[in-house]
Amino acid sequence: MTAIDRLVVAGVGLINGSLARALRACDEVGEVVALGRNADRLAAAEAAGVIDRGETDPAAALSGADMVVVGVPLSAVRDVLAQIAPHLPAEAVITDVGSTKASVVADAEHALGGDLRRFVPAHPIAGTEHNGFEAAFPELFRGRRVVITPTEATEAAATARVRGMWEACGAHVIEMSVGHHDRMLAATSHLPHLLAYGLVDTLARWDDSNEVFEYAAGGFRDFTRIASSDPLMWRDICFANRSALLETLAHYRADLEQLTALVRDGDEAGLEAVFRRAKTIRDRHRPVFEQ
Amino acid sequence: MTAIDRLVVAGVGLINGSLARALRACDEVGEVVALGRNADRLAAAEAAGVIDRGETDPAAALSGADMVVVGVPLSAVRDVLAQIAPHLPAEAVITDVGSTKASVVADAEHALGGDLRRFVPAHPIAGTEHNGFEAAFPELFRGRRVVITPTEATEAAATARVRGMWEACGAHVIEMSVGHHDRMLAATSHLPHLLAYGLVDTLARWDDSNEVFEYAAGGFRDFTRIASSDPLMWRDICFANRSALLETLAHYRADLEQLTALVRDGDEAGLEAVFRRAKTIRDRHRPVFEQ
Repeated sequence: MTAIDRLVVAGVGLINGSLARALRACDEVGEVVALGRNADRLAAAEAAGVIDRGETDPAAALSGADMVVVGVPLSAVRDVLAQIAPHLPAEAVITDVGSTKASVVADAEHALGGDLRRFVPAHPIAGTEHNGFEAAFPELFRGRRVVITPTEATEAAATARVRGMWEACGAHVIEMSVGHHDRMLAATSHLPHLLAYGLVDTLARWDDSNEVFEYAAGGFRDFTRIASSDPLMWRDICFANRSALLETLAHYRADLEQLTALVRDGDEAGLEAVFRRAKTIRDRHRPVFEQ
Repeated sequence: MTAIDRLVVAGVGLINGSLARALRACDEVGEVVALGRNADRLAAAEAAGVIDRGETDPAAALSGADMVVVGVPLSAVRDVLAQIAPHLPAEAVITDVGSTKASVVADAEHALGGDLRRFVPAHPIAGTEHNGFEAAFPELFRGRRVVITPTEATEAAATARVRGMWEACGAHVIEMSVGHHDRMLAATSHLPHLLAYGLVDTLARWDDSNEVFEYAAGGFRDFTRIASSDPLMWRDICFANRSALLETLAHYRADLEQLTALVRDGDEAGLEAVFRRAKTIRDRHRPVFEQ
């Protein structure tokens, strides 16, 4: 007997596609059904062997589901949850893969009529620069972290099922509060993306000839790889996690002002101290960075 | 006949060590002599096959030299040039590998008594996170850019010899003015390093538990690899190129203020436009970034 009889993925992007592939690879799922808007995309995902069946009709998709995973852009979560809600089997657990959690919980409260007993907010911290099920592969989550942020109403049994699903994919599952998740990810993911996009844009506008891009080897390259990520997705994330992002941005800008003052004032010892602290702590965590 | 009869490298770090290895690999150098302060390090470089001979005495090192390459920290360039100057053979060309050029030209003017006819400021844009001749390898410069910034006094024949040396190592050599180099590198290398060090330090101080470093996969990792670079070297670079760095920092901070305003004001279209511009231009230059 498999852990999940019928998995419904709403959206067949990189994350849901990789989840489907991973669960099938370890034989932890019976049937994988995808709910989507675009019949051609669903047919292509079926032909690629990512899903068993695609449905554009929520009722047809959700019939018999015992696990539903919402993997759509943050700005679409509320609408998709609202489409799913009327057809959700009584015993089905519902979870998501969004990069921010407070916004998703608010969407779920709205769409599920305040009943969050079987709703388990989750965020697999994994990805590539590539999007779509075409880029999906079963090992994407192996050794990666999946953060689960159960609400006060979420039943322990529902949380346990979502945890088990991700552990079957080889992920390390961690539970924390919604607020803690959103602050942590604002600092380590949302802010770096904003800064990287910002730097590329600043330099592109500063240098009409784009000669700066010829000198990428000097450090710019590492810095800006993430600026190649999906602009719409990251716009959504920034606004979905706006208050935490603004808080971490305020910290960063205040520190950047101090760093600027060190350079301007010729404070060699002060600047060296910052650089040393940063290198020491970064090197201490090197194994994490080189995963 | 080789292009260089006797190469003297002042300092045997990653760059000078790789230069020696590259020139020997293509048979473009007769003898490689290293001038250094630490006899044990020189002996180790000789034992490793990076150089033919090490000298701590400038007169002994420079005798018979026809090419001298200064590869020491920026804060040591002036003193090393002053040690070399009295012993420099009349026909020898002297060049450097420093990351900033106005500071090095000022040092050379001071140390060489204003005679820059045979002085060719240069900057190979190549490196790794590792330092020292132990990390040196002959292919380090292959396909990389070397910027040469001849002064008004520099003789064309001296520039041509330095260009030939780097081309023999497989590098693309580009000439530009000192000021243009320093502005370009401030933007593409010095600023990104400063921002990366700053972000790591900000997050380390913001989060006492250092839990943030467990979430490196979210974008932080790419951003901060360069924060593992040598703090002393980067402190020197920031101050050697202070005015250009402050100029590019001012641009960046003003733009970051606008980016913050877009998030704060909920300007979704505005933020998306910045992200799209950045992705478009970054992807257009993808081949450079993926070198």
